[in-house]
Amino acid sequence: MAGSSYGTLFKLTTFGESHGPAIGGVIDGFPAGFSVDFEAIQKELDRRKPGQSKLVTQRKESDKVQFLSGIFEDKTTGTPIGFLIPNEDQKSKDYDQLKSTFRPSHADYTYEAKYGLRDYTGGGRSSARETASRVVAGALAKQFLTQQGIEITAFVDQIGDIKLSEKERENADFSIIEQNLVRCPDLVKAQEMEELITHIKKQGNSIGGSIACSINGVPAGLGEPVFDKLHAELGKAMLSINAVKGFEIGSGFGSISMLGSEHNDEFIGLGKTTTNHSGGIQGGISNGMPIYFRTAFKPVATIAAAQNSVDSSGNPVIVSGKGRHDACVVPRAVVIVEAMTAIVLLDFYLRQKAVR
Amino acid sequence: MAGSSYGTLFKLTTFGESHGPAIGGVIDGFPAGFSVDFEAIQKELDRRKPGQSKLVTQRKESDKVQFLSGIFEDKTTGTPIGFLIPNEDQKSKDYDQLKSTFRPSHADYTYEAKYGLRDYTGGGRSSARETASRVVAGALAKQFLTQQGIEITAFVDQIGDIKLSEKERENADFSIIEQNLVRCPDLVKAQEMEELITHIKKQGNSIGGSIACSINGVPAGLGEPVFDKLHAELGKAMLSINAVKGFEIGSGFGSISMLGSEHNDEFIGLGKTTTNHSGGIQGGISNGMPIYFRTAFKPVATIAAAQNSVDSSGNPVIVSGKGRHDACVVPRAVVIVEAMTAIVLLDFYLRQKAVR
Amino acid sequence: MAGSSYGTLFKLTTFGESHGPAIGGVIDGFPAGFSVDFEAIQKELDRRKPGQSKLVTQRKESDKVQFLSGIFEDKTTGTPIGFLIPNEDQKSKDYDQLKSTFRPSHADYTYEAKYGLRDYTGGGRSSARETASRVVAGALAKQFLTQQGIEITAFVDQIGDIKLSEKERENADFSIIEQNLVRCPDLVKAQEMEELITHIKKQGNSIGGSIACSINGVPAGLGEPVFDKLHAELGKAMLSINAVKGFEIGSGFGSISMLGSEHNDEFIGLGKTTTNHSGGIQGGISNGMPIYFRTAFKPVATIAAAQNSVDSSGNPVIVSGKGRHDACVVPRAVVIVEAMTAIVLLDFYLRQKAVR
Amino acid sequence: MAGSSYGTLFKLTTFGESHGPAIGGVIDGFPAGFSVDFEAIQKELDRRKPGQSKLVTQRKESDKVQFLSGIFEDKTTGTPIGFLIPNEDQKSKDYDQLKSTFRPSHADYTYEAKYGLRDYTGGGRSSARETASRVVAGALAKQFLTQQGIEITAFVDQIGDIKLSEKERENADFSIIEQNLVRCPDLVKAQEMEELITHIKKQGNSIGGSIACSINGVPAGLGEPVFDKLHAELGKAMLSINAVKGFEIGSGFGSISMLGSEHNDEFIGLGKTTTNHSGGIQGGISNGMPIYFRTAFKPVATIAAAQNSVDSSGNPVIVSGKGRHDACVVPRAVVIVEAMTAIVLLDFYLRQKAVR
Repeated sequence: MAGSSYGTLFKLTTFGESHGPAIGGVIDGFPAGFSVDFEAIQKELDRRKPGQSKLVTQRKESDKVQFLSGIFEDKTTGTPIGFLIPNEDQKSKDYDQLKSTFRPSHADYTYEAKYGLRDYTGGGRSSARETASRVVAGALAKQFLTQQGIEITAFVDQIGDIKLSEKERENADFSIIEQNLVRCPDLVKAQEMEELITHIKKQGNSIGGSIACSINGVPAGLGEPVFDKLHAELGKAMLSINAVKGFEIGSGFGSISMLGSEHNDEFIGLGKTTTNHSGGIQGGISNGMPIYFRTAFKPVATIAAAQNSVDSSGNPVIVSGKGRHDACVVPRAVVIVEAMTAIVLLDFYLRQKAVR
Repeated sequence: MAGSSYGTLFKLTTFGESHGPAIGGVIDGFPAGFSVDFEAIQKELDRRKPGQSKLVTQRKESDKVQFLSGIFEDKTTGTPIGFLIPNEDQKSKDYDQLKSTFRPSHADYTYEAKYGLRDYTGGGRSSARETASRVVAGALAKQFLTQQGIEITAFVDQIGDIKLSEKERENADFSIIEQNLVRCPDLVKAQEMEELITHIKKQGNSIGGSIACSINGVPAGLGEPVFDKLHAELGKAMLSINAVKGFEIGSGFGSISMLGSEHNDEFIGLGKTTTNHSGGIQGGISNGMPIYFRTAFKPVATIAAAQNSVDSSGNPVIVSGKGRHDACVVPRAVVIVEAMTAIVLLDFYLRQKAVR
Repeated sequence: MAGSSYGTLFKLTTFGESHGPAIGGVIDGFPAGFSVDFEAIQKELDRRKPGQSKLVTQRKESDKVQFLSGIFEDKTTGTPIGFLIPNEDQKSKDYDQLKSTFRPSHADYTYEAKYGLRDYTGGGRSSARETASRVVAGALAKQFLTQQGIEITAFVDQIGDIKLSEKERENADFSIIEQNLVRCPDLVKAQEMEELITHIKKQGNSIGGSIACSINGVPAGLGEPVFDKLHAELGKAMLSINAVKGFEIGSGFGSISMLGSEHNDEFIGLGKTTTNHSGGIQGGISNGMPIYFRTAFKPVATIAAAQNSVDSSGNPVIVSGKGRHDACVVPRAVVIVEAMTAIVLLDFYLRQKAVR
Repeated sequence: MAGSSYGTLFKLTTFGESHGPAIGGVIDGFPAGFSVDFEAIQKELDRRKPGQSKLVTQRKESDKVQFLSGIFEDKTTGTPIGFLIPNEDQKSKDYDQLKSTFRPSHADYTYEAKYGLRDYTGGGRSSARETASRVVAGALAKQFLTQQGIEITAFVDQIGDIKLSEKERENADFSIIEQNLVRCPDLVKAQEMEELITHIKKQGNSIGGSIACSINGVPAGLGEPVFDKLHAELGKAMLSINAVKGFEIGSGFGSISMLGSEHNDEFIGLGKTTTNHSGGIQGGISNGMPIYFRTAFKPVATIAAAQNSVDSSGNPVIVSGKGRHDACVVPRAVVIVEAMTAIVLLDFYLRQKAVR
């Protein structure tokens, strides 16, 4: 109810503030008897962690996950998997000035309004640090899904105005994604994006971006009709990631201008269509074609420039971002998008087992 | 789990196929002691119902709701409110040919894949007729929210390529919305949209559109951090509506191209900001500013033209839409967007009562 | 949240007051493609309905269930099964005096305290009439479980001080249960019980009783560890039935006086033990042996005698039961116990499908 | 779904095996702004911990809880409270023989049947060690409830055949409970019970017992009608505790033999009745009178004597308990009963806030 859990049969519950002793979570409902690849999990955490490249924040966190339960002799036992990731780089003094100041477009004010108090050190619970716990659960889910033939690949398809065309997106060479710091599957555009981010970073400013996600191998039949449609749940999962402002499945906002005769995906076989404007989902249920969606990230709120704000008494104050922040969060967020996608898909995969 | 329920403290469970004896639902968790305005609920149903204007499908359904429980002497008692809406216009013979045919971009194939069988008369459970039940619950929620000073207004802001500018959207005159068949708050654009839909209808084709929603009076503090962010839940609710392909909150996809220095909403008072790119929500929690979002609807799948498809054995067949369908669903969907918004907001309103 | 739903994957939501137009419910998550035996469902309702014998209340309700959705050509489609049972015998005038009076040991006062108002006609939502909806869902679940080899049999094992011995309970001849009005598997004791109830009825008084339930064919592995133990959920389900005051699984309260060396069930094979004090469940998970439990029912609160009470202002009043009430509810409750047992077991059966 | 969470608005999720690095949990939905008394929490853990007296197992665990999140400057922030309790006394070698042996009346066999594998060291997840996490959450809940005037007191009222009479139970002097090792509010009976346990312990055997729980100060109106009745949820909570075989509320199993005229609680004022056979709950909702219930604990399964069992291939083996186990678990379980009671009550307390 308080929003710290996600999923139904496969459920992740997370806890932790950015500047407490640790963040972590509990993974419940992971199938029993699965051999865990711990290295692969750590590798996913490394893709998210700060300090991984010159493009991202230079804050240092080794982000080493410790599993506390639910795994015995390297196999899942079906019981809950508790884990934690210690917080290492807790320079809480950096944040003392924020005690009674609300940073623009951060959650400082809203947490205070909701709870009547807040942990003002480093964003507390609203910090994107929390997403590391999602990556742990998502990495586990991904391993399981891979064994079922389901492959999830997210990548950056837009930074500021630099954008892959629809065709470039469709023909994306996934092998290139991890070869560049931006995680874009087009080397030319990746180079431009990298330069843009570097430029913005020097200015102490920030810039938005978009992440596309492509899922292959999903069998027809996943997703529940009416309220828990597959794309509705994917949308919620993406919109729950910090800084996300939009989500579109398949043809998305482009569908508004299309005619039914253009948009309809004609069948050429069972579960095979000529086009795929539906994005692999019809009536909220997967149809066996590739699933794809896009997620819009706003520019991160912390910037160097002085900005107008108010303190907790409503008096005007000037705030400016200190410390080491990301000029663009999307290269690091690629793995979070994949993690949340995996969490959603594994849940629906397990739910379908109860249908027939 | 099977996706027929929505909400946590305020929960709607729906049932019903388009061609069964009735659709309906159970509303659980509505506050006790509230005087119900039955006329206002019926009025909302009338805004959704087929046959209401020359623009929409001429199918006839009176859509009269019958309440079976939970209301005593016109007041809610706190116990579940069961209701049903009889189906009247069940020309099941129209659908016999669909028994073994999958219509392009409908849910015929995916339901069959999921369940191994399907009710092939009129879309069954995947028919948008189910949304009438949402309108009943949403209308009730809206009455309650209005008493708390929360006003929800949705309107059409795009049909095909005819679109309100950002400025036109911001300055929308809500009093105009119900004065035109399209439900657009700009009479000039409304006229153009009406002509476009009429034109598309004559061709037996369909066209997409977009609905914007604006919410005023939401107190700061609604929404839960991390997974159940207010806009994530709104996104799921919208994406669960038939034909919706995209959702954006506040600056949405436009935020991708913005700099942090442009996007940040500077404070000029407690809960007051100069701009509102955040769309009234920060960190998943309302900040007291107006909330607004947009929802993309694809063109409806049923069109008159012959299309390629396959039957249940995978053999090629030609299908073409018969019967009385909408050329553009968005004018009728305005009330569904409002209903789902009200359902989400009332749930978070009640959830906040447990926080402090 | 408001308590009108039961179950997770297999979920029943009910609505309805005793004197409204109808009661009913929504069954969600029932497996798709199952051929429904409608007659068997009605037969279960008949076992519960008032007026079935001279022993029970002579109130008349035909209790005919109408299915509204989720079943197509007599097969479940996987979508929610909406149903209703019209209320026929609504002599609301009988209840006018209760408007401002709280009957002793009824829920009149607590509903008023909880909600600030109540439907005072016939107990409203607190009436046991609501259990008819449970019987519908339970009858469906039972049909499915029978196909899996799981058999649920409940019977009366005690009325007042007339009680089956442990041995008589263990050797119960299930074929006798429906051959006597009390539903006791021992004809001699059944006769005594019948006489006792008849005697109590003449006095305008009421008497308590106990129902034992025996479940055969449950495979090992059902139930979840820690909080959702199989017997914990069975206990909750039984305690949610009107008038139930106690629940014991296996050795139950008798286990208090036993030594570990007496109580432990020694293995003589995989899933086979010499004794079965565990009642077929260890650590909250079924072990393949028969499951059995007992449920205590208090005497029904409505009696003919004058009793002291207060009105809504706290002033003393005298109340006495009018109308046609049960002197002993347990013969009719046997089918409710079976229904709730089936609902719990089907839910765990489906949940287990996600485990491995 | 996998049973590791309890509660709705106030929710506890636990993880951890007896012989892993740590057990712990996440508490979600605790009200914000509450000043935590850490010492009081540790004191409750000490009441549960092994080695606290000569009566209980001499296994050593200091059971020190570490809070990782959700508390800032000693106040709850409304965000999830993550915590862990390191396991110290992990003599895993003791358990190597159990790898392929199923101990009688333990959960070894059922876990293996459910999951296809199990952590065989020390009972793994089925060990009562898990209840320490419940005590942490329960201690927090208790602090909050005390501030609302709600007092929960559990005590031992039976060990083997030594039992408090109803009158002794009603007149229990709560101040005596913590003054004797058995936690019985009657010093004479406590002495007898202590001697019995000591005697049983010397024999390497075990004995059952019963815990009564009394709750004062609960306002009328807590609990939800129909499925989530207050006593149904209390019953589930108690039955989810290791070794519990029975639960009765108010008159419980004794009500079976009572007449309605004896059992009914006549009103002498609003929320005041002459007798309290209802145990403070009517129709599943608290009525303002004291709530009381009893919980039956079977003798613990680990005993010194040789017992017949089978190995994982079904071959006969002899097992006998080694190590340091409780001869009677109820004195330590008193605090667990209180903890689960507090968890249930706080949840319903918060749920009632949404009703009106």
